[in-house]
Amino acid sequence: MKKVIKSSPIPIYCQLKEIIQEMIDNEELQPNDPIPTERELCKIHDISRMTVRMAIMSLVNEGVLYREQGKGTFVARKKQKHQLSHLRGFTEDMEKLGHIVDTEILSFDKVNCAKSIAKTIGLSNEQKAIEIKRLRIVDGTPHALETVWLHPNEYPDLKRERLENVSLYDVFQKDYGLKPKYAKQTVEPIHLNTFEKDLFGIEGDSLGLLFNRTTFSDNDVVIEYSKAVYRIDKHKFEIYLEA
Amino acid sequence: MKKVIKSSPIPIYCQLKEIIQEMIDNEELQPNDPIPTERELCKIHDISRMTVRMAIMSLVNEGVLYREQGKGTFVARKKQKHQLSHLRGFTEDMEKLGHIVDTEILSFDKVNCAKSIAKTIGLSNEQKAIEIKRLRIVDGTPHALETVWLHPNEYPDLKRERLENVSLYDVFQKDYGLKPKYAKQTVEPIHLNTFEKDLFGIEGDSLGLLFNRTTFSDNDVVIEYSKAVYRIDKHKFEIYLEA
Repeated sequence: MKKVIKSSPIPIYCQLKEIIQEMIDNEELQPNDPIPTERELCKIHDISRMTVRMAIMSLVNEGVLYREQGKGTFVARKKQKHQLSHLRGFTEDMEKLGHIVDTEILSFDKVNCAKSIAKTIGLSNEQKAIEIKRLRIVDGTPHALETVWLHPNEYPDLKRERLENVSLYDVFQKDYGLKPKYAKQTVEPIHLNTFEKDLFGIEGDSLGLLFNRTTFSDNDVVIEYSKAVYRIDKHKFEIYLEA
Repeated sequence: MKKVIKSSPIPIYCQLKEIIQEMIDNEELQPNDPIPTERELCKIHDISRMTVRMAIMSLVNEGVLYREQGKGTFVARKKQKHQLSHLRGFTEDMEKLGHIVDTEILSFDKVNCAKSIAKTIGLSNEQKAIEIKRLRIVDGTPHALETVWLHPNEYPDLKRERLENVSLYDVFQKDYGLKPKYAKQTVEPIHLNTFEKDLFGIEGDSLGLLFNRTTFSDNDVVIEYSKAVYRIDKHKFEIYLEA
């Protein structure tokens, strides 16, 4: 193991994080391997328990390591890599990779949504949006929480039952002739809130990625606005950039 | 102001966050406006000071609000929106938007880098990489910290002085005939570490986005590997997705 450099301007706990991350990248540590104990790390680097804990906790929050009560700290499994440049539904994306996707509809309501969302999907004054909250489950583990807002005039007679375990984009196309063509999506880091952590079965402070997406059809009409929160211990997102 | 719904399964502090975020999105609250005081928020929603603080601190961490000692809490300025689908340098990107970009070279060294990076840029055993750390400054404010690793054989005689306040991609092209053609870039949420917070002049727990980029030239040769840490109180990233 490399050692921390005490004279460096980089804080010791950050150096230790990088050293552990490197051991994982280099495959010296494999998924589900235990990492050295806090006591061992203190001794190897001649640093305080507090510093070691800061490094480990930070890697746990970032989904690089996971802890098991009374057993120790382990290297997380390899994350599922996603290409972010293509407009594909989550279902399609994961099924292509050989996973089994389930979707639990948490809620299906008509609501007064935020004015900015109402404007985006083109609601008139005081008109309510269809709001759908879905938990996306991959191979039995909850991976993402998605909220979608739709214009009620575009989706007449849409029922909750129609959406169980199907791709929303399939329903848009098959039932309403709306084919998603392109989308604009922002990406932001967030702390998962307690509601999200409960759904995902995660404890402690954990980071996530928030995607806000506006999806357009062939004729540049907005067909949905959505917010999706992804846990990052399971997913890694990659973007393809062209000159 | 909308009110929190105490019977909802969504935690109260999350609801309060959303209510404040909506007021900003709807432009009821403008950049640099003070938000209602903690005491006022407690009274309006009939909730505890602790809950109000959790909501506010969380929005501060996410760069939506900022605090000034003894003055209160204010709405952050609008973030600079970036398109993430094009491979452009930071300098070019920001200058197109009318900003003045400075680049401070924090370090320029030959180093033993992580094995995974060595492999990516094609170093042979024990060969050292050129490592360049740069602080990207926009209109006088530090916005991002970037570390680049280069293969020394590809960039003979590269000197620190050549890099001051220029686009690295310009140097690649003009001095070495290496034209960046495409890149693969991952995006991850992180806690800024104390080194990064010091550089950016930010206090408290703050989130950032980490981009790991591998850039390829015309003939599919890797010409750089880089890690860039962006503060998120200044930047918002958008991706264009095509069907």
